[in-house]
Amino acid sequence: MLKGAKKMEIFMSYAMQLAHMLNGQTSPNPSVGCVIVKQGRIVGFGAHRYAGGPHAEVEALLMAGEAARGADLYVTLEPCNHHGKTPPCTEAILKAGIAGVFVATEDRHALVAGSGITRLREAGLDVQVGLLKDEAVALYEPFWTAIERKRPRVTVKVAQTMNGTVATGEQRFITSEVARADGRQLRGTHDAILVGSDTVIVDDPALTLRSSTGIEPVRVIVDRRGRLTETFQVLNDGLNPTYWLTEQPRTTERENVTVFVGTYATPDQILELLYEQGIRRVLIEGGPTIQSAFLEADLVDMIELYQAPSLFSGTKSLTTEQDIEDRFDLVKMNQIGPDVHLQYVRKERMTCLPD
Amino acid sequence: MLKGAKKMEIFMSYAMQLAHMLNGQTSPNPSVGCVIVKQGRIVGFGAHRYAGGPHAEVEALLMAGEAARGADLYVTLEPCNHHGKTPPCTEAILKAGIAGVFVATEDRHALVAGSGITRLREAGLDVQVGLLKDEAVALYEPFWTAIERKRPRVTVKVAQTMNGTVATGEQRFITSEVARADGRQLRGTHDAILVGSDTVIVDDPALTLRSSTGIEPVRVIVDRRGRLTETFQVLNDGLNPTYWLTEQPRTTERENVTVFVGTYATPDQILELLYEQGIRRVLIEGGPTIQSAFLEADLVDMIELYQAPSLFSGTKSLTTEQDIEDRFDLVKMNQIGPDVHLQYVRKERMTCLPD
Repeated sequence: MLKGAKKMEIFMSYAMQLAHMLNGQTSPNPSVGCVIVKQGRIVGFGAHRYAGGPHAEVEALLMAGEAARGADLYVTLEPCNHHGKTPPCTEAILKAGIAGVFVATEDRHALVAGSGITRLREAGLDVQVGLLKDEAVALYEPFWTAIERKRPRVTVKVAQTMNGTVATGEQRFITSEVARADGRQLRGTHDAILVGSDTVIVDDPALTLRSSTGIEPVRVIVDRRGRLTETFQVLNDGLNPTYWLTEQPRTTERENVTVFVGTYATPDQILELLYEQGIRRVLIEGGPTIQSAFLEADLVDMIELYQAPSLFSGTKSLTTEQDIEDRFDLVKMNQIGPDVHLQYVRKERMTCLPD
Repeated sequence: MLKGAKKMEIFMSYAMQLAHMLNGQTSPNPSVGCVIVKQGRIVGFGAHRYAGGPHAEVEALLMAGEAARGADLYVTLEPCNHHGKTPPCTEAILKAGIAGVFVATEDRHALVAGSGITRLREAGLDVQVGLLKDEAVALYEPFWTAIERKRPRVTVKVAQTMNGTVATGEQRFITSEVARADGRQLRGTHDAILVGSDTVIVDDPALTLRSSTGIEPVRVIVDRRGRLTETFQVLNDGLNPTYWLTEQPRTTERENVTVFVGTYATPDQILELLYEQGIRRVLIEGGPTIQSAFLEADLVDMIELYQAPSLFSGTKSLTTEQDIEDRFDLVKMNQIGPDVHLQYVRKERMTCLPD
């Protein structure tokens, strides 16, 4: 293996770049990147592109061909050791004659959970785990959480005034342009954005990443009473896939719009549908009613709160019938322009996560 | 094609990431990255990995398979339209049924020089040129310069005091740690680092990137009189390829060391050998004698000058028998820690470069 831990970090950072490049288009699978290095040169690289497609390791090994023999393989997530839609990556790695394997993080998915690393080590390979681990865990945690809870990992995003009021009608934007851009970046790390029909009717939002980096998420519109028409942007611009959830008989010929007719009276009914559709990370953007419903149902994992230095009378941001105490920890706070960004994480830890 | 110029920039930036990832291991070819996008999803990606290997476009098309039909292709350099070691990329693009092509910059290499773009446009493809152009031109300019001059593009790196003295013996480091790290980064954008035997004897340097990003360059040691032995790091650590240029009969069994016995009395004899070996970007690190020889022979394209706020008596950094006036323009200056970094570029422009 190449000398120097820093050098290894660089090759792992290339694998990470590949994982981030594909992040958002691989659900329900996480995005994984892989780089194969021999004598300091990159002989192959790959990433998982879509669920059911070849895994990152297989793509990279295919590219490397015979050059893989005796080379080092850098991968952002523990190689799988089970037969899923594709054969186990561990076997492909062994067959190719890889000498050393660098894994950013073990996979806490119960189907893998160390067995890939064990398999490779038992076969005599030198396996090192933990290079750029924090970055990898941040990328994969939502997937582990989703599998454990059997529902998408749920983030609520709120933009409010310092007295907890949200924008309505005239006061359309509460937070600054820079804070809103930061909020749009959040979309790039989610598979879906969810809003209620009120938000569509009042704001007619596009719900796209716009200039932000990343694959565009699915737009999920909860419209139980079937109040929406195809005049709204999300149902007619055809830009990104849109799921139209309604309890009324509705059909559409619009490109990229899928109607789901069913019962969506409770948040868990909505999440069940999304999980079935392969969504693993959903961002609930509004409005207050739907966000509060998820909070009361105890189905929120994170709250991203953007707070402007203004005071409005009007609609409260998050309302609850019952008090919600001691459920969240503040894990991050920073200033963005004139605004504050506060990040709260659910107290109840996933068992798949370390301390 | 996808709406929104920003979005296109993002996909081109992914192609750029791939090009930077492989930069340093493709000489004499430049490093090229390619991403294929269909309906906002990445269906294929690739990069040129080694001279003689598949071009970036071919790698990406291979990965995309049938999904390439009707997709957009983002590539950092104009696709080739001639039969070299591989068939023309233009034909592969047309055969795959690509709809739109985004090219960061036309290739100013005379063999391509717009013909790839013309070929694709004549075939009815929508070709847009200029996305992230500045970044692409910076990456490819050394290759164009090298082809035009039929020698590697030459950069001289100097670390000196404010009175133009270089370190000798005791005062081993003149500039600060942060400036030296910046200087090592320079190595990552060159195919070779060249030093004279004096530098090896006095400093015994490793001449590696160490923790800096990039593929390790070849180490070129000019040792006309054959004064070196295998006790020096560059000739015995086996870390990176080393070319040992000498006029004396020398052999070695050392891993990664190649002896070139020949006449190296003038800089152009040295550059001729390096060009033949596929080197397109050489960084001359020292000492003053060899650097001054290249300057006097008018074979220097850039000078990277790191200047510390100290005053030493001792050896002058760059000495010339003849005066060298009006040959360089200052194009960049910035402060690095306590030091100054000045970048000078040869006045005489390449005809391959715009204005």
